[in-house]
Amino acid sequence: MKILGIDPGFAIVGYGIIEYSGYKFTPLEYGAVTTEAGEDIFVRFKKIYDSLTEIISKSKPDAMAIEELFFNSNQKTAINVAQARGIILLAAMNCGIPIFEYTPLQVKQAVVGYGRAEKAQVQQMVKALLKLEKVPKPDDTADALAIAVCHAHSSGSLTNLIKWK
Amino acid sequence: MKILGIDPGFAIVGYGIIEYSGYKFTPLEYGAVTTEAGEDIFVRFKKIYDSLTEIISKSKPDAMAIEELFFNSNQKTAINVAQARGIILLAAMNCGIPIFEYTPLQVKQAVVGYGRAEKAQVQQMVKALLKLEKVPKPDDTADALAIAVCHAHSSGSLTNLIKWK
Repeated sequence: MKILGIDPGFAIVGYGIIEYSGYKFTPLEYGAVTTEAGEDIFVRFKKIYDSLTEIISKSKPDAMAIEELFFNSNQKTAINVAQARGIILLAAMNCGIPIFEYTPLQVKQAVVGYGRAEKAQVQQMVKALLKLEKVPKPDDTADALAIAVCHAHSSGSLTNLIKWK
Repeated sequence: MKILGIDPGFAIVGYGIIEYSGYKFTPLEYGAVTTEAGEDIFVRFKKIYDSLTEIISKSKPDAMAIEELFFNSNQKTAINVAQARGIILLAAMNCGIPIFEYTPLQVKQAVVGYGRAEKAQVQQMVKALLKLEKVPKPDDTADALAIAVCHAHSSGSLTNLIKWK
């Protein structure tokens, strides 16, 4: 099973594609789509959509796993992150792949086995499971891989499947 | 100039298409795209994208004018409205039409001439300007027409043009 993990964002969208079979993980491709702060917001939204569409079209994952959104302080940032996340969801839908959502707690639980694990613990576990030489940078990319791992560990149950298809 | 006005939302997306030439308005088509609360959220997002794409493709407006977003109380609703708005922006971008954003204050100012006008005043003015028999329902549709009128009145200046193209 090929899984695309996404850490949603506006300035940085982390992504990671892994193959999971026979309880073994193989990292296939990972990185981040970044948009420039000085650029017009719509140029940035379009870049996110086009980049994600290209990543999905090329890698043809069986599923996209994406972190749920919770708002914190900055309202303007929050609106743009949510708008960008809507666009990311649409890229997956327009490419015809199913979408699964996980909370940060679910990701930590699935990757480290402990819902209150530190970010560094999650990253070290991702590095170990995927047999990487070092923790991927930026953090958004490591988080995206963690979300993909979370889906691999969770996909026995279909409780998080969003039935949009 | 043909203008598509949008009142963004998740359960209800108001839209209104008007023709503006020689300082005269002609309403061409207006209504609302609605999504069911019981339905899966991704089915709802996809319906919004597909419906907007169809409306834009059929009516071929010269521009889309859309209200800016401000968050209030309910976080879950706010996230979904913002995600839906991102998807609406993308529909316009993928159809190749320029997007203009206005605050509620700018809309009231442009339609009624007074930024603190009541909702009912805005609606009555929309009805009068567009020579409609009654105020369109739901409110989201009347609001969308107001945003289109606002753009017609503002389009002499290009300050709100989002240069994503």
